[in-house]
Amino acid sequence: MRILLTNDDGINAPGIRALHNELKNIGEVVVVAPDKEQSAVGHAITIADPLRVREVFQNGDSLGFAVDGTPADCVKIAVKAIMKEKPDIVVSGINQGGNFATNIIYSGTVSAATEGTILGIPSIAFSMDSFLNRDFSKAVKHAVEITKQVVGKPMPEGTLLNVNIPAPEVEVKGIKVCRQSSFTFRVTFDKRHDPRGLDYYWQGGDMNLDDPDPETDIRALKDGYITITPIKYDLTNYDFLESVRSWGLSG
Amino acid sequence: MRILLTNDDGINAPGIRALHNELKNIGEVVVVAPDKEQSAVGHAITIADPLRVREVFQNGDSLGFAVDGTPADCVKIAVKAIMKEKPDIVVSGINQGGNFATNIIYSGTVSAATEGTILGIPSIAFSMDSFLNRDFSKAVKHAVEITKQVVGKPMPEGTLLNVNIPAPEVEVKGIKVCRQSSFTFRVTFDKRHDPRGLDYYWQGGDMNLDDPDPETDIRALKDGYITITPIKYDLTNYDFLESVRSWGLSG
Repeated sequence: MRILLTNDDGINAPGIRALHNELKNIGEVVVVAPDKEQSAVGHAITIADPLRVREVFQNGDSLGFAVDGTPADCVKIAVKAIMKEKPDIVVSGINQGGNFATNIIYSGTVSAATEGTILGIPSIAFSMDSFLNRDFSKAVKHAVEITKQVVGKPMPEGTLLNVNIPAPEVEVKGIKVCRQSSFTFRVTFDKRHDPRGLDYYWQGGDMNLDDPDPETDIRALKDGYITITPIKYDLTNYDFLESVRSWGLSG
Repeated sequence: MRILLTNDDGINAPGIRALHNELKNIGEVVVVAPDKEQSAVGHAITIADPLRVREVFQNGDSLGFAVDGTPADCVKIAVKAIMKEKPDIVVSGINQGGNFATNIIYSGTVSAATEGTILGIPSIAFSMDSFLNRDFSKAVKHAVEITKQVVGKPMPEGTLLNVNIPAPEVEVKGIKVCRQSSFTFRVTFDKRHDPRGLDYYWQGGDMNLDDPDPETDIRALKDGYITITPIKYDLTNYDFLESVRSWGLSG
């Protein structure tokens, strides 16, 4: 099995390094990842600047290829210019921090897996629900188990899997297949003054989302489950097409 | 009516300037847009760097506020820090170039309108299907007509409208409400050598998508129609949830 492994925290992040070490046991892994952190870049691609690719070594061993672009760039350039053969699966992660609810549209981790799906390759995004704990040993075991079971399963065109794994200190109760919560984090802007007296803003927000609906990714994750959500990039609201037609708009 | 107007081509782009001039006639318009072009940034947000906001003037008149961030940043900071009252509608565009099919996930124009929807505000994205023709006079008339008719219409939570307008040289046949095509542009990487002999790549691709299905945005646009597609940011593939459950995955 040929695995393309990428992420949005950068090629040296602990989540991708730990996953690389374990995935090696189940297939041939090629790592193509951003050369630096690219969190919250969403589905950005680089079209106005050239891209550089650099092979990265550690103690003489190749760790993979670092790209000075976004996670979506990495998957595109890996498949179209770096890898000799198309991968059997694209794995993205493991991200430092959960990717659930509305937040997934900001996620570089998820967008990399989406890009794999767009290129016709089965793809999975993995995220661990902790911004601080850098111990990925348990999360990696879950991710590899899930990857092994998912490979070869029939997936509808344009659909990928978004997987969240609880923080290391949480005892995992099992796996729940659930929908994306519609909750969104409350954004805030902290206005400050620089040493020259000019205004600037820090964007932030309360990430503590708590959706009471047990069918949602947030709830299941907070309750100690690994969550799996099949997602797609056809954004059409099919249920609403006829309503808009009934408006009889004219231009 | 309070209108928040933004885009991804930057505050000085002809598409937003032309739309601003016409929208003034139907409401109070506040422009908050990126200070430079932000095409293909997808739904990126700026969380690792501070944001600056600068009021921009032309011949003594304020054109609006320029933000050194992404289109999604602009909508967030406009609603949360710049505008005293929440806008009644977010209008994004008019983009130079169509935003249809899979390409909409890369679009800053669409992501700005999506952000408006996330913040609970009815939102529309407008794009003109030409990368070269900078005459937005006809497109603006269509956009304002559609905006007037859409305001106040009931929209499901989490849904926005993505509108494409044919190029100025095309005679518009009418409006079609249609789905997002699943076609995707063929990405290519052009490998070159810099003056120092080092490799770099330009990302590009063939944007000439031609979906034969008359129910798709591409087909209708190429046939001379203004296209309107209701889109949503809940990416869950609901039809596939039960199938994934039937796999009986264990972690």
